Amino acid sequence: MAVFSGTAHPELSAAIANHLGIKLGGLKITRFPDSEIYVKFEESVRGADAFLIQPTCAPIDANLLELLILVDALKRASARRITAVLPYYGYARQEKKDRPREPITAKLIADLLRTAGIDHVVAMDLHADAIQGFFDGPVDHLTSIGILSDYLATRNLDNVCLVSPDEGRVKTIRKIASRLRAPLAVGYKFHPAHGVSEISGLAGDVRGKTCIVYDDIISTGGSIDEIVDTLLAHGARPEITIACTHAVFAGKAIERLSRPEIKEVIVTDTIPLPAAKRIPKITVLSASGLFAEAIQRIWTDSSVSSLFD
Amino acid sequence: MAVFSGTAHPELSAAIANHLGIKLGGLKITRFPDSEIYVKFEESVRGADAFLIQPTCAPIDANLLELLILVDALKRASARRITAVLPYYGYARQEKKDRPREPITAKLIADLLRTAGIDHVVAMDLHADAIQGFFDGPVDHLTSIGILSDYLATRNLDNVCLVSPDEGRVKTIRKIASRLRAPLAVGYKFHPAHGVSEISGLAGDVRGKTCIVYDDIISTGGSIDEIVDTLLAHGARPEITIACTHAVFAGKAIERLSRPEIKEVIVTDTIPLPAAKRIPKITVLSASGLFAEAIQRIWTDSSVSSLFD
Amino acid sequence: MAVFSGTAHPELSAAIANHLGIKLGGLKITRFPDSEIYVKFEESVRGADAFLIQPTCAPIDANLLELLILVDALKRASARRITAVLPYYGYARQEKKDRPREPITAKLIADLLRTAGIDHVVAMDLHADAIQGFFDGPVDHLTSIGILSDYLATRNLDNVCLVSPDEGRVKTIRKIASRLRAPLAVGYKFHPAHGVSEISGLAGDVRGKTCIVYDDIISTGGSIDEIVDTLLAHGARPEITIACTHAVFAGKAIERLSRPEIKEVIVTDTIPLPAAKRIPKITVLSASGLFAEAIQRIWTDSSVSSLFD
Amino acid sequence: MAVFSGTAHPELSAAIANHLGIKLGGLKITRFPDSEIYVKFEESVRGADAFLIQPTCAPIDANLLELLILVDALKRASARRITAVLPYYGYARQEKKDRPREPITAKLIADLLRTAGIDHVVAMDLHADAIQGFFDGPVDHLTSIGILSDYLATRNLDNVCLVSPDEGRVKTIRKIASRLRAPLAVGYKFHPAHGVSEISGLAGDVRGKTCIVYDDIISTGGSIDEIVDTLLAHGARPEITIACTHAVFAGKAIERLSRPEIKEVIVTDTIPLPAAKRIPKITVLSASGLFAEAIQRIWTDSSVSSLFD
Amino acid sequence: MAVFSGTAHPELSAAIANHLGIKLGGLKITRFPDSEIYVKFEESVRGADAFLIQPTCAPIDANLLELLILVDALKRASARRITAVLPYYGYARQEKKDRPREPITAKLIADLLRTAGIDHVVAMDLHADAIQGFFDGPVDHLTSIGILSDYLATRNLDNVCLVSPDEGRVKTIRKIASRLRAPLAVGYKFHPAHGVSEISGLAGDVRGKTCIVYDDIISTGGSIDEIVDTLLAHGARPEITIACTHAVFAGKAIERLSRPEIKEVIVTDTIPLPAAKRIPKITVLSASGLFAEAIQRIWTDSSVSSLFD
Amino acid sequence: MAVFSGTAHPELSAAIANHLGIKLGGLKITRFPDSEIYVKFEESVRGADAFLIQPTCAPIDANLLELLILVDALKRASARRITAVLPYYGYARQEKKDRPREPITAKLIADLLRTAGIDHVVAMDLHADAIQGFFDGPVDHLTSIGILSDYLATRNLDNVCLVSPDEGRVKTIRKIASRLRAPLAVGYKFHPAHGVSEISGLAGDVRGKTCIVYDDIISTGGSIDEIVDTLLAHGARPEITIACTHAVFAGKAIERLSRPEIKEVIVTDTIPLPAAKRIPKITVLSASGLFAEAIQRIWTDSSVSSLFD
Repeated sequence: MAVFSGTAHPELSAAIANHLGIKLGGLKITRFPDSEIYVKFEESVRGADAFLIQPTCAPIDANLLELLILVDALKRASARRITAVLPYYGYARQEKKDRPREPITAKLIADLLRTAGIDHVVAMDLHADAIQGFFDGPVDHLTSIGILSDYLATRNLDNVCLVSPDEGRVKTIRKIASRLRAPLAVGYKFHPAHGVSEISGLAGDVRGKTCIVYDDIISTGGSIDEIVDTLLAHGARPEITIACTHAVFAGKAIERLSRPEIKEVIVTDTIPLPAAKRIPKITVLSASGLFAEAIQRIWTDSSVSSLFD
Repeated sequence: MAVFSGTAHPELSAAIANHLGIKLGGLKITRFPDSEIYVKFEESVRGADAFLIQPTCAPIDANLLELLILVDALKRASARRITAVLPYYGYARQEKKDRPREPITAKLIADLLRTAGIDHVVAMDLHADAIQGFFDGPVDHLTSIGILSDYLATRNLDNVCLVSPDEGRVKTIRKIASRLRAPLAVGYKFHPAHGVSEISGLAGDVRGKTCIVYDDIISTGGSIDEIVDTLLAHGARPEITIACTHAVFAGKAIERLSRPEIKEVIVTDTIPLPAAKRIPKITVLSASGLFAEAIQRIWTDSSVSSLFD
Repeated sequence: MAVFSGTAHPELSAAIANHLGIKLGGLKITRFPDSEIYVKFEESVRGADAFLIQPTCAPIDANLLELLILVDALKRASARRITAVLPYYGYARQEKKDRPREPITAKLIADLLRTAGIDHVVAMDLHADAIQGFFDGPVDHLTSIGILSDYLATRNLDNVCLVSPDEGRVKTIRKIASRLRAPLAVGYKFHPAHGVSEISGLAGDVRGKTCIVYDDIISTGGSIDEIVDTLLAHGARPEITIACTHAVFAGKAIERLSRPEIKEVIVTDTIPLPAAKRIPKITVLSASGLFAEAIQRIWTDSSVSSLFD
Repeated sequence: MAVFSGTAHPELSAAIANHLGIKLGGLKITRFPDSEIYVKFEESVRGADAFLIQPTCAPIDANLLELLILVDALKRASARRITAVLPYYGYARQEKKDRPREPITAKLIADLLRTAGIDHVVAMDLHADAIQGFFDGPVDHLTSIGILSDYLATRNLDNVCLVSPDEGRVKTIRKIASRLRAPLAVGYKFHPAHGVSEISGLAGDVRGKTCIVYDDIISTGGSIDEIVDTLLAHGARPEITIACTHAVFAGKAIERLSRPEIKEVIVTDTIPLPAAKRIPKITVLSASGLFAEAIQRIWTDSSVSSLFD
Repeated sequence: MAVFSGTAHPELSAAIANHLGIKLGGLKITRFPDSEIYVKFEESVRGADAFLIQPTCAPIDANLLELLILVDALKRASARRITAVLPYYGYARQEKKDRPREPITAKLIADLLRTAGIDHVVAMDLHADAIQGFFDGPVDHLTSIGILSDYLATRNLDNVCLVSPDEGRVKTIRKIASRLRAPLAVGYKFHPAHGVSEISGLAGDVRGKTCIVYDDIISTGGSIDEIVDTLLAHGARPEITIACTHAVFAGKAIERLSRPEIKEVIVTDTIPLPAAKRIPKITVLSASGLFAEAIQRIWTDSSVSSLFD
Repeated sequence: MAVFSGTAHPELSAAIANHLGIKLGGLKITRFPDSEIYVKFEESVRGADAFLIQPTCAPIDANLLELLILVDALKRASARRITAVLPYYGYARQEKKDRPREPITAKLIADLLRTAGIDHVVAMDLHADAIQGFFDGPVDHLTSIGILSDYLATRNLDNVCLVSPDEGRVKTIRKIASRLRAPLAVGYKFHPAHGVSEISGLAGDVRGKTCIVYDDIISTGGSIDEIVDTLLAHGARPEITIACTHAVFAGKAIERLSRPEIKEVIVTDTIPLPAAKRIPKITVLSASGLFAEAIQRIWTDSSVSSLFD
């Protein structure tokens, strides 16, 4: 077993290696002055069961291309099996054509990874389940639901209600709600009557409740902002907890999450969170143990499925 | 241009050919006594732009294998391009792994079609948008929303509300609602409190309204039955209209749709509906014109996208 | 090593597992009400050397599609190698184009299996040897000649002659004849003179002999019926033995085999023979030991070739 | 349309071009002193529908590799479609594994041609029909039966019998026999009784008849020699006609064909016959018209199937 | 014909379109706040012969990924043929492994382009000729030698000598020298004697001559700086002209080119040159006419080869 | 581990096996009278890590096709990994298009090898480094520089200068020069002035020196002949040593190498050198130890890279 880290998220890679009780493999990654990437593995990988840890978060072009180049180098150096550990799968929200003449970039990325030489993928909380089918080979699809639920349980929140900001996350919200034994509510947009513009509705009763909103990805925080407004309008207590797996936190995200009705923001470390964005109310839970366990089991051909849920 | 029909749905194929003003191509399809399929195209397809019409509805194994064999024969007979017109895409609901060691059959089917020699796919209202990405080549993804909405508009229903039976169809319901300038409601399942078993909830106000429920596929009618109960419990008028694209109608479907609170059931003809199931309240709208138009445009390299929505 | 059985022939799978001294792997295979197949492996197959036993006999569409879906599930569950054990290879007689615009379905099936994820194939008495070449990877091609010959030797038949019903099986008949140290005869169709319609001829002297007719597949029994007539017309003793590997027995097969001049019908169990068709004169020899031995040797990288002849 | 000739059989290529009323495309093919082949097309082939004429006869390695290199050059020069016209398909008799650890070279050749960039194949009288299935794309499989039969009909032979030297050609012999309205006979090898070594048998009555023996390929003439002996032993007239499609004529072939009981040897020109081997009794019928017609029809997307039989 | 421009070099694309007398196709390319690229073609490309102009210069990751996504969108929108016009091919200098466990990124890029759906490539002055072989399909390899030579001829320089800065460009230098009917010289590094460190040598006599140095790519200008030193040391006139195809101009390039002994720097516009780098002594010759001509000829299936040299 | 030898160079294969302390695997290779190759492995290769030794030297067509057929047989016999050991890679000098409508045969060969079933390649001193990139999988690229340099060091030559006959080998010459701590010189062709025909130039001072000329391949010896003339014209001592890796020695090579100013010719045994060409001044150094070591390390997953330089 040889575990290597791209440059996207060295802290997570180090934490995974620490859990595994190993050192990360020697690997040189640099840039030429004209922006071209150069990589070189510093130790033999011949016959190795190689794992590459690289979330394809921003800067997504650079992180993705670096990953592809690393895979090419491993393949040509006779690695026996190459597993890409992708804590965050960029472009996951472009998994379909919503309009004509758009790409399906999430599928393209899967094809590029296969072309470079990936044999196996480990991912977490993919935005759409069908992305698993974009790969021809095995995908071990981990989830952070356990990590988030376990932490939330320790908060001893009272009179809780789990909230999905839109219809896309109801399936996940149900799983968290069932672990916390709490009711759920769902936000949605609708036209209440003819000629009236779209407004935010809410299914479920949140009056006086302590709401926990979960989304898989928080990008600019726009939809979180809206659901918080909606929850407050429906009488929720102004002590709302926000949870997400992938803390993209682009644009105005931090500003929006700073509003006082949001009491705590719980995220995992699938994407590096720069110090400047680490406002006090953010709690980062590490998924490194889960990734380490998955790597260990893949390496030893043990069942990974018990980590799925 | 040469348009051929498999044996899955000859009525639809005939209707499409009629719209195009052409005769269906000569094609012999038989079975040997041991159940093996035998096919032979009765006219030259050399250099042809060939279209094969075959919904992969039940008996799904037979219809799918027949389609694959037809494609193989076309390919070996030097057809220039082979387009599969798949009014219904079977196995679409197995587009992801929900549990470990399941297949992703919707992807497998796409791969089998590519292997047999398909260049291009025309489909309608795929259960999950990401299925488009399961194909490497172009997919023209038609929708019956226009057909259904236009018909509904002619019914002059009063005080209408569009209803999605679960979170999966909200996106489509929004499109119909916006055409009919009507509000919407969404059914969902939830645990109202700790220790209480799952019940059906409803987002949106349906009191005294004439509800139109849409689902893409009605299989055994179980979820339609539940949403009707829920709507009635929330005060909807007992004159509910059910609309769907793909009338699978397996098991108890007809029995369930026969309940008196359902006034009309509107479906399209993507799947053949045997006479025995054609109860009076069912209205079948033909999608044949839409498929004919798509074939015509593909053949002449005109834009198909205006048919998408 | 993990050995799984599709639903085509559970008795044969059980017999193979028994020979191997193992339990068949846990596997759930069901149908949804709309006819779609659902499968789920009940135990981890990660890193496994997996064998799937499934003759693609009638209902051939169902058995084939089930096999493809099982392979897809195994592949996505990280099985290391997937071997399809195909005691009977359906569509083997469509291995060429006899007329323009026909498919070559036997090749299509091989391509579909490769696409689904098969690494290795074990087959028996393929109708045409060239079908081995339809696969890119290894095919272990077993034969039942040894089983059949050994059994025939125990019958102590007197003054025996081996008979091929047509030119297609002469090669196999020679092998059996050389094991039984008996002469052979070959049936064929010919026009004896200008303007005379085709009749059945026979090469070789069968006068007063105890004939053993071998064919690889008996489907409706039509050609067996004809060769029996021919043999009797050429003076063979009316105590004819029929042997075949693959007892398809469709249509009027049992009726035809019931004629009194046929004394015994010897078949193997590559295809399940329903109780209703098990008339007393049929002797079923099991190929399960041979398949078990092949699986054992493939698993241990021992030579399989000694099983070939 | 652009038609090019490799170096294997320039006479045939010239004859085909003559039938088409075109000039062969400019093409330079040379060898470096170290035996490497160098090719260069002398005119633009961009967008061309290119046909390459090259039987893969002896020296088979050279002819095959030259063909592959020509295809590579055409592909890289942007030809639109590349059709290999293969009057003789070398290695066709290695289309299966007869023993363990043999190759299936006929399949390998098909794979190599696809890899180089072949889109389409035109072949004649392939040794095994299943070789068509070794290709993924279209194969136009011509036959010389018409040419040979038409010529034989002009000979006004009396009391004719068509003879297949072994079981492998019975299917073809039937077609010729039905055109000439003559009976047929089949040679075969068998053990007449226990302990007796294999002898040549003959099915059908040839006493006093004028025999026409057909085989697809005559290599060293060994099996022709044997069937002639057998025919004479069974009372055939010592004025035997030999017909074949592919005149390989290796080793002692000419010597064997020179025996006086063979009156005429009819072959086609799929393989070049050097002057030294053109003994007077050999009649060479040209297949060039048939190949020209096939090329013409492929180019104009007309049906080729009427040329098949 | 439809010609589209990525965002890498809109000026070049506009110039090419101008030469062709067409408008560039409508195309929307934006970024989401989290850095993901979004593209949408604004007009139908169904059946189109589509050309995408995109040099993969810095920022190379972004330009490359954008190109791949554009190709994916074109492919799924049913473009008939997709040609990538790559005025500059990034990563071309990583076309081999110089050390173990390096990637061969130039091959990887070719594979990624093929996977995305490229059918055809137009490139200019590839760093290594063998890169053409990295593609399976046609590559039209243009050269700027004509443009540069024609311009140099107009300068009426006296007593000229063409200089290659190292052994890698001698082949190109010969072509320019033969057009200008001038002698040549070659720089190289060597150890003049045992124990002496490597120094720059020069083959050819440059004493009192007006030197023209050509390199395919000028990145940081380091090797240009060295060859200028060497030329001066060998007595060349301090009025040196530098010519290159691909003006990468990274790092200290402009500073180095500013030294007074360099009189003029002639480049083409395969890479955008920002205003800040456009020092007066730089002359930019446009390759847009050449690319336009190549596109025109590819579209009309005319010969492109006359543009190669 | 199983090591097999094709017929191209049995002496080298035997020497490699001897170094490994193993017997070469049993393998039958014959020709049919019509020139077709027949191969059969005489022992089980199921699950084997198989190595095939075959330089693709002249007769190159035969050696290459034999190699492809051997690979096909190994693949179908279930070998686990197939490594082609290619001491000499024929067609390496056709690795690019120099003129339009040429092939890129070096890439074609790589593609053919992959199609046949090669997993891994071991090569030596490839003519162009980029050929490594023609393969998708790992290439272990050995070099004879160490062997040649070590031998040269033992010759105790005085006042040595390393010479590259043209610009193509400067990179290699530098490596040898640095091992021998000697200066270098480079031959080249140039036009010394307008209107003067091309002459041979030389960079570097060879006056009174003992020159060692290295080229990777010596085919007809023409360029060696020219560089010797040039060296003598520049005052080199008439005791020149010639070294090369691949002794093709076609055409007039031996005659040219016999000139008295060439004192010794040092080659390796990557290509068989027939006795008739073994003139006394030729020294053959064996690369067998290097190949044996590489095979040993590949088999044991040890690092091969230390053998690269």
